Amino acid sequence: MESAIPDHLRCPRSRLRRVPDDYQPPYPSFVARHPTRVTQVVMAYYGVQSRAGRAALTPALAELQARFGATAGPQHADRARYIDEAGYATVIAAAYWDDPARYDAWHATHGKAWTGTSRDGLGTFVEVLRPSVERYETLFSAPNRAEGIAALASGMSEMVMEHAYWGGARDRIPASQTDALAPVGAPRIEQDGAQVVVHGHEHLCLIRSGQDWADTDAGERAMYLGDVEPELRAGMDFLRDDGRAIGCYANRYLRVEDDDGRPLEKSYGMSWWKSLAALERWAESHPTHIAIFGAAMRYLGKLGPAAQLKLYHEVTVARADEQRFEYLGCHPATGLLRVGG
Amino acid sequence: MESAIPDHLRCPRSRLRRVPDDYQPPYPSFVARHPTRVTQVVMAYYGVQSRAGRAALTPALAELQARFGATAGPQHADRARYIDEAGYATVIAAAYWDDPARYDAWHATHGKAWTGTSRDGLGTFVEVLRPSVERYETLFSAPNRAEGIAALASGMSEMVMEHAYWGGARDRIPASQTDALAPVGAPRIEQDGAQVVVHGHEHLCLIRSGQDWADTDAGERAMYLGDVEPELRAGMDFLRDDGRAIGCYANRYLRVEDDDGRPLEKSYGMSWWKSLAALERWAESHPTHIAIFGAAMRYLGKLGPAAQLKLYHEVTVARADEQRFEYLGCHPATGLLRVGG
Repeated sequence: MESAIPDHLRCPRSRLRRVPDDYQPPYPSFVARHPTRVTQVVMAYYGVQSRAGRAALTPALAELQARFGATAGPQHADRARYIDEAGYATVIAAAYWDDPARYDAWHATHGKAWTGTSRDGLGTFVEVLRPSVERYETLFSAPNRAEGIAALASGMSEMVMEHAYWGGARDRIPASQTDALAPVGAPRIEQDGAQVVVHGHEHLCLIRSGQDWADTDAGERAMYLGDVEPELRAGMDFLRDDGRAIGCYANRYLRVEDDDGRPLEKSYGMSWWKSLAALERWAESHPTHIAIFGAAMRYLGKLGPAAQLKLYHEVTVARADEQRFEYLGCHPATGLLRVGG
Repeated sequence: MESAIPDHLRCPRSRLRRVPDDYQPPYPSFVARHPTRVTQVVMAYYGVQSRAGRAALTPALAELQARFGATAGPQHADRARYIDEAGYATVIAAAYWDDPARYDAWHATHGKAWTGTSRDGLGTFVEVLRPSVERYETLFSAPNRAEGIAALASGMSEMVMEHAYWGGARDRIPASQTDALAPVGAPRIEQDGAQVVVHGHEHLCLIRSGQDWADTDAGERAMYLGDVEPELRAGMDFLRDDGRAIGCYANRYLRVEDDDGRPLEKSYGMSWWKSLAALERWAESHPTHIAIFGAAMRYLGKLGPAAQLKLYHEVTVARADEQRFEYLGCHPATGLLRVGG
């Protein structure tokens, strides 16, 4: 067992970990390990929306895929879709770099074009974090299925100590050793030509939290889809529709698809929060998440180590200058646009 | 809103509270406030057991009640019963003092007699903590129904900040401002004449956690007894039978009764833990407590502020010299005797 915080990012603490030194988690979990040369990464969510339905998005997605394939394009990307609360078909391609200079080079030509070029009947947007490695954490239930930023890692850790208790995500973020990660300021919306830009704020928080039921057999799949997924969906709907009051700026619950638009047996939620603290409070005490957590516990309790469902997440608490949100031709409740209120 | 830690017990922190300064709990809770002159209290659980059933306990309980009425007797007491895992009818009278000198005076005559005098066919025991006021906390869902040590308080607080998140109990204990409350050592059993004495250890932990459904109407009572209580009982049974592996030394789930032995619509669990950390881990992540918590959340979610169920607890983390456990003629799985292993 090892710490989730890699050796080279450990420092004298002014803020204590929540669990004592002899804490033993009740089941194993793993975190992504980057090469030590990696000091900052880029997590960029490129979205496209249309009221006309999924097929209307296809040309733009083909363009995006071509751009991703260009020089200095993302080292990893996946694509997922959903119908948003306004009824717009939406696809988001999540793209990852572990070299900000490479991202900047790609962005100068290709990234800029995504929200810089109007497309008839379509809205495009990008929501980008470029956190230093001190400012995010990952967690995986299985060590052999990297997703998201972990696809760029050199590998997975051994079993880590800091998980399976509330506050574990905070304790896995290296910056939490010395920083309360408290939010400062409020989002601000600015019109910039045809684009709308949202300026975030210090210590705004993103969670991407994923589910992968591809390996489940028929019985387990029926349990997941029948007992757990409906609770998950209800919680995601709550955050999407009513999350603002508890500090959730925006929530999307997406189904991952392949390059040809066929749905995979994977999903993820991505939600933007005022702060890690607000996310912590929802997760540990809101009835909607208690219901999700309870259903998952009953499921895993029944199946034990035989469970083939894979779960993962990544949580980032970004500095103000590590965020960029741009929207072009999008309806006013898209993503962080709604915080304009 | 105010801090659960009273002003006169606040000190410069070396350990931080888990929630930020702007934390707002989602519903109100209250804590007991003692007069500032109170610096240490006594919580003493006087038990009697018999394989022959409840009626066999009556004479001993009458004796105990008379002793409680003697000079310097407890300022508050209640009585509760259960059938323990060995099938012994058991009654425990929980007695409280807020003046240790007064307790010592009473104990010299009356307390000593309880576990100093063999009674044919009966086992007697006492489990006592005498914590300083820095080393325990209380929490009440309603401000007008004191139980346990709170019956000796001068009143209840206003709504307090430090609750409705995991780690709240720790944050309400004044000593947690500067002390990790980590356990040191292990329990040790010693034969002392006819008595068996268990020596606890630094930072052993007790929780008394109570339920009062006397004020519920028929519909709410049916929901409590049908949906919540069975989950509570299952969790209590788990801790009683299998708690050792996760740091629970002993657990009892008792029904409160009146002085004539008639059951009241009140119950409480009392459990002895190796540490507050072990109790925290069970509460926040064990399937049995997630099930209790989930059932309670669904119940309170349906009823909202109309719910008439009253909940409370007191959690103590005691120094080694603030503990005393004595057993006379008891079966070997009684209370802390089982830690002898």
